[in-house]
Amino acid sequence: MAVGNELLIGKTCDTNSNWLAQQITKLGGRLRRVTQTPDELEEISEVVREALARRPDFLLTVGGLGPTYDDKTLQGVAQALNQPLRLNPEALRMVEEKVRQLAELGVLKRPWLTPEREKMATLPEGAIPLSNPVGTAPGVLIKAGGTTVICLPGVPSEMKAIFNLHVAKLMAERSDLKYAEGSLLVEGIPEPDLSPTIDKAVERFPEVYVKSHPKGEEAASKIELHLSAYARSLEEAEEKIREALQWLEGEALRLGGRVKRL
Amino acid sequence: MAVGNELLIGKTCDTNSNWLAQQITKLGGRLRRVTQTPDELEEISEVVREALARRPDFLLTVGGLGPTYDDKTLQGVAQALNQPLRLNPEALRMVEEKVRQLAELGVLKRPWLTPEREKMATLPEGAIPLSNPVGTAPGVLIKAGGTTVICLPGVPSEMKAIFNLHVAKLMAERSDLKYAEGSLLVEGIPEPDLSPTIDKAVERFPEVYVKSHPKGEEAASKIELHLSAYARSLEEAEEKIREALQWLEGEALRLGGRVKRL
Repeated sequence: MAVGNELLIGKTCDTNSNWLAQQITKLGGRLRRVTQTPDELEEISEVVREALARRPDFLLTVGGLGPTYDDKTLQGVAQALNQPLRLNPEALRMVEEKVRQLAELGVLKRPWLTPEREKMATLPEGAIPLSNPVGTAPGVLIKAGGTTVICLPGVPSEMKAIFNLHVAKLMAERSDLKYAEGSLLVEGIPEPDLSPTIDKAVERFPEVYVKSHPKGEEAASKIELHLSAYARSLEEAEEKIREALQWLEGEALRLGGRVKRL
Repeated sequence: MAVGNELLIGKTCDTNSNWLAQQITKLGGRLRRVTQTPDELEEISEVVREALARRPDFLLTVGGLGPTYDDKTLQGVAQALNQPLRLNPEALRMVEEKVRQLAELGVLKRPWLTPEREKMATLPEGAIPLSNPVGTAPGVLIKAGGTTVICLPGVPSEMKAIFNLHVAKLMAERSDLKYAEGSLLVEGIPEPDLSPTIDKAVERFPEVYVKSHPKGEEAASKIELHLSAYARSLEEAEEKIREALQWLEGEALRLGGRVKRL
């Protein structure tokens, strides 16, 4: 879930969730839902509760870990988990270290541990802070039943750095699947007329997901067929994609289409 | 809600929801939640049910109206509303008209009304089709209690055209509020040290929402303060923003920051 009013007023496009979706997929995971929610305590905690009820392996939150009054994600998570918020000594050490560095850089006049900075080290009880190589606010990991809840900051460079450093490995360990994909551009066959061929491909290659994406104006009849598959090994996943691509290519040519691998 | 596996594997960034968020906000509406869901019947229908339970004025779905096997949005909406799907005569007329045009353009050899094209005219009972000036699949409007459910296609040009033609007016009529916004770039004050000033602004201007967006590296101490407000008239909303911007500008200068209006 992505937290932030800026998403719901359309000021910011949620590229964070898009980036995370790519990483999760590459790691063999399947992202089941993305929710964008405003900076409101009750909303955040409701979305967390609803997500936990679906019992995912991982629940990721992005945004709302900063020092300002409307950074409420950890409050929302704590409320959803019925855990109090506590100053976390390990997180405090991380924040202090950053404050010291900023003071050395001359950004701060002195290593000032204000209440706003302490807020970033105040975590739900039982949480583990994840060091942030780029900014001050640590990421947060909390176990909730079978779900690992991970809270990441909304600044893209910080979100990516914490994901790469701490989260990617956890996800790869949890998944025994690999993901592969491929695309075919078909021109000259309107989508409704290509649709029966897609149905046949889905029957013939049940482990390959085929999705058609119309490109540009409908009258141009330009369709991207995107194929994706999961398998135990990357080679196996790629082989599935290769076979299905080849078959679809032949069928599209037979229907009089022009075909290009993307 | 945005429907499509391509969103959850990260192939596509959900720019449709971002565009809709901008339009809804400009029209005086408040978008409360965005959900991205895969092309799966049960998931779609669950998200629709959950959204309707929150009793919004509008529920928008984007994507999944096309002719292929995995275009399942209308099935999901019908299931959530306990309505059967029926061939809609008005929608069929719209699809036939498009097919005739495509045949005249030479894109189709003959005006072929295949089952795949009929699928795009098969709507939940009681639905009203919304003509699509760009593509074939009509949009769909369905009343569900106090909520107006609107289903739009996922191709951005078609989604925008149907929204502008049919939906914008409905939303403007429903809202008696206007929206205004403004931004200030503050440099040289780290976010945690600017935070108490933001708290004061929020107290002083309770109708203005102030959000800080750190820009670039933390050590650069570059913060965008984004202000937004709703009011009965645009002038009133803009006046609120003006007053709060001016006050924040003065406070940031007093703290030794460099300030620029954006």
